[in-house]
Order: sequence, then structure tokens, then C-alpha cells
Amino acid sequence: MSAWLVARGNKKELYLYLWEHACRLYREKVRKGDTQTTDLFEILCQRVLAGCVFMREAPTIYLFILRAFFEENPEIREELQNHYKTAYLHGTEDIRGPADMDLFRPGIDTRLLLEEINGYLLSCYWKMFSTGELNPDSLEKDFLKRVGQWKRVYLKERNH
Amino acid sequence: MSAWLVARGNKKELYLYLWEHACRLYREKVRKGDTQTTDLFEILCQRVLAGCVFMREAPTIYLFILRAFFEENPEIREELQNHYKTAYLHGTEDIRGPADMDLFRPGIDTRLLLEEINGYLLSCYWKMFSTGELNPDSLEKDFLKRVGQWKRVYLKERNH
Repeated sequence: MSAWLVARGNKKELYLYLWEHACRLYREKVRKGDTQTTDLFEILCQRVLAGCVFMREAPTIYLFILRAFFEENPEIREELQNHYKTAYLHGTEDIRGPADMDLFRPGIDTRLLLEEINGYLLSCYWKMFSTGELNPDSLEKDFLKRVGQWKRVYLKERNH
Repeated sequence: MSAWLVARGNKKELYLYLWEHACRLYREKVRKGDTQTTDLFEILCQRVLAGCVFMREAPTIYLFILRAFFEENPEIREELQNHYKTAYLHGTEDIRGPADMDLFRPGIDTRLLLEEINGYLLSCYWKMFSTGELNPDSLEKDFLKRVGQWKRVYLKERNH
């Protein structure tokens, strides 16, 4: 971190600097898990499970990112909202890009599906944030159970 | 409201009293919309649309309920968490109870599905809470679009 930043004593700048650094560490972890699968649900699983590994390895950093996401301070919130929007769009394209859409039943809009899965994950993160307790084992188990059902309903029968 | 409550000046008690009253008004509105359908998705739609009507008719009360849900004060949060858990379980049974499970593809766990839909709705409410802007028209339109896809994938083909 550049010394001038600390010397300046700008709390918001410092917070955002730490937040960006924490998110970079998180992204690196999640991307490291990427393999060459073209099954959208497998790609999703790899990312969620990599997130759980990060949660176990660096719980303090994970909690910091979580708290930033649900930050109440309007100045910080406004600043982070645009980052999240961009990150979500990039993240979605990173998942949809390599995914083989032919595995899906005809007419499925995977954008809707990913928004819903993202919303569900947000509710899991909200629970962790509001209790202050990270629970990677429970998230992993819960997510894998749901993936089984999503595959059955969203993919063509031969691809279950 | 009993005069002693105000006179006592217990802010937490007063807050909880107002919160319970607001939730009662909301529940009455949402339940009034109930009809005799046995299609789980129709029941869900009626509830979400009734919530949107309440949002339009009583935006201040709706925002109050929303802010209470995402309340940061740990004392209030702890108090409300149990209420929410109970309300969610009752709400889920009110939806699953009259629903005809024969309409679904075999082996679907509607508890998982309802948790996911609830998680998705929570992410919509979070957006409204964090921007301070209620958007019932957008929620209605968005939800109905998703219901179309859910029916296609979760129900047997003849029931789409």
C-alpha cells in the first residue's frame, strides 16, 4: 500500500483500497479452480466450492468482504454498488461463456436462472453476515443438493 | 396502542409493537388475495402481487418493514430473527398445503424450490432497501417472467 494513502488519513480511500485488495485475493482463489468443463452447473459448483475454500482459509478477509457488501454507510455503499454490478456481469459471462447451451431444455433463459441462483446465494451470505458466523460446510452441502435438482429440471433428460 | 407503552418510553418495545402492527397489516393484505387454486406457482404469484399492491398503497409501512428486516442493531435483529423463521415456515406451509404436487415432475422437492424463490425475492428486497426505492411494477413484471420459466421446468409437460 502506498505510504501517502495512510499518511493522508482518508478513511474511505483506505477502506476501498483494502476492499479491492480483498476482492482480488478472492477472485484469484475462485478462478484458480476453473477447469475446462462446459457444464454450466459444474462451473457454478467449482466457483461456489472455491469460495468455501477461501472462507475456510481466510475467514477474516471473507467476513470483511461480506460486511462491505452489506455496508450501511451510504457513501461506501454507493461507491461499491457499481463495482458489484460490473463484477456480477463479468462473473455471469465467465460462467455462460464456456457453457454448452445445448445441454439445456429448449427455451431456457440461463440469465434468469443465474440471477435466481445469485439471489439465493445472497440470502445465504445475508444469513452468515447477520449471525457473524461463516458456515462453508453447510453452504457446500446445501448447494450441491440444489444442483442435483437444477440439473434434473433445467437440462435435457439425457444430460442429467 | 396502550398509553403505558409510550409513557414508559421503552424504544425497543415501541419499535417491536409498531413492527408487529405493520406486519399484521401486510399479512392481512396478502391473505386477502388468496383464492382456491391448487397451482403452487399461482399461489406464489397471488402473494407476490398482493405484496406489490401493499407496496403501492402503503409505501411508508412497507419501507418500515423492509428496514426492520435488514436492521443492523443486534438487539432488534436477534428479536426479529425468530419471528422471521416462524413466519417463513408458516408461509411455506400456507403455500405448499393447498398445492397439488401431482402437477410437478416426479421427485421435485418444493421446499428447496421455495427456499430458492424466497432467496431470490430477498435479493430484490435488498436492492429496494439499499437504494431506498420501492419498485412494485418492476418486481411484478420480473416475477411473472420467471414464473413462466419455473412452470416449464418444474411442472409436468401437460401442466405448463
